[in-house]
Amino acid sequence: MLKVPEHQVAGRQAIDGKLGPLIDNSGHFYKPLQDDDERGTGELTFYHSFSSNTRIPHHIRRFFPVFYGTQLLKASDGSGLRPHLVLQDITSDHLNPSILDIKIGSRTWYLEASNDYIQNCFHRDKTTTTVSLGFRICGLQIYNESGFWKPERKLVRSFTADDVRSVLRMFVSSNVGPEPDFCFADSVYGGCDGILERLMELKTWFEDQTMYHFCSCSVLLLFDKESFLKGKTPFAEVKLIDFAHVVDGNGVIDHNLLGGLCSFIKFVSQVLADSKGSTMED
Amino acid sequence: MLKVPEHQVAGRQAIDGKLGPLIDNSGHFYKPLQDDDERGTGELTFYHSFSSNTRIPHHIRRFFPVFYGTQLLKASDGSGLRPHLVLQDITSDHLNPSILDIKIGSRTWYLEASNDYIQNCFHRDKTTTTVSLGFRICGLQIYNESGFWKPERKLVRSFTADDVRSVLRMFVSSNVGPEPDFCFADSVYGGCDGILERLMELKTWFEDQTMYHFCSCSVLLLFDKESFLKGKTPFAEVKLIDFAHVVDGNGVIDHNLLGGLCSFIKFVSQVLADSKGSTMED
Repeated sequence: MLKVPEHQVAGRQAIDGKLGPLIDNSGHFYKPLQDDDERGTGELTFYHSFSSNTRIPHHIRRFFPVFYGTQLLKASDGSGLRPHLVLQDITSDHLNPSILDIKIGSRTWYLEASNDYIQNCFHRDKTTTTVSLGFRICGLQIYNESGFWKPERKLVRSFTADDVRSVLRMFVSSNVGPEPDFCFADSVYGGCDGILERLMELKTWFEDQTMYHFCSCSVLLLFDKESFLKGKTPFAEVKLIDFAHVVDGNGVIDHNLLGGLCSFIKFVSQVLADSKGSTMED
Repeated sequence: MLKVPEHQVAGRQAIDGKLGPLIDNSGHFYKPLQDDDERGTGELTFYHSFSSNTRIPHHIRRFFPVFYGTQLLKASDGSGLRPHLVLQDITSDHLNPSILDIKIGSRTWYLEASNDYIQNCFHRDKTTTTVSLGFRICGLQIYNESGFWKPERKLVRSFTADDVRSVLRMFVSSNVGPEPDFCFADSVYGGCDGILERLMELKTWFEDQTMYHFCSCSVLLLFDKESFLKGKTPFAEVKLIDFAHVVDGNGVIDHNLLGGLCSFIKFVSQVLADSKGSTMED
């Protein structure tokens, strides 16, 4: 029983007869391989390389969705059988997860890409926060008292630095509106098991690894308020996703991802600091 | 008594009737303010802001040339009196300094620049190591047994990642050729007072500071082999130079410079590690 993922916030969706990913009830995420632009091939190549790479530390492997191979499935666009990547469905253990999909790096193109691809990315990077902040929010859903807030793609693309700060505040608040209560900031962003600590672990690895350059990949933050309130763990997760444009690092660190990651870490740190300031004022 | 700097390795030079910087015998470097493209104005604005900024830690201020104000001087191109920035001449205490000028960042343009400027930089960034490595060597001179090696600008622009590694090896060797002796690697790159430690200090600051974005600025490495052999200090220096394109950080870290700096640090670390490997084999 395959179905359209309920909690997909960015990327191509399997709706209106289009090609997109599917999920099942046992925690698998099926991502169709693209034949038009070698994107799918690129991602499969990466997963094969990564899963057999013995130089990936165990604590870093946890940041990546589990890869179960490929499977021929009826594609969501009705075009018949098509190979799909079989991946871990990151949202499967969560009822109402808040999710941020953040494309990391101040450049989403790469030298090996076609000129058209470079020009398209170059334009999008300049007109979103990619160049200015070193990352951009690609999609999100935030669960709160009144249900999910899931803004349209067009609105997300128009986000400014201040919008990003607002989103990061809302993500860890129980209320909506201009005065976030930062209710979950300390537990979700702070602490030795919080999102900031996870991001710092990633940063340390990216300061050193020279095997892969992760162009146009995303950090996905997930926070399940209900799991947290019921004392279930894990209630927050950090994953890396979307590896269609991973290229060989050739002995050079992924300075593009690293710079963007450091900028994002600074944003999260500032929201955490703001939350402490706001609590002290109470 | 003003003269053309002997140890300038990059940038516009005051030769053949062109406009360029001058030095005197008392350690001052006079950089002409440009009137054609606001570059000079940009750099003066930065030095004014930076020198009165009380949030710059003392240990970070040391990385910047001392700023003594401006002075009207006869320009080197014979065009008459022109305002010049008066800066510290970093090379003045050294007889035969080896120098590397490394433009840091995988992007030398910035959103506020004109379209022509962006397109020019974009092209240069793709065709040098700027995009691939996150930095490019802009100029260099290396002093060794046979005098200075100071390659032409055209050759420097064609450098690959392997050329960069060779240059970093030569910089700390007493000989030339394909088998560098790494003679000074440990003292110059390593140790608690070495170049790597200085670069790490800068990195820590750039992970935090959100006041300035240093577009198209350079890290200058200087190493004076003769001072070292005679036991004089300092025999090696790390400076930041060229601030014509510094823009407001607007509360965001300089992720472009930081990423490039981390990549450069990894290159230097690898050369230091190679040098230890080579010594152990001996």
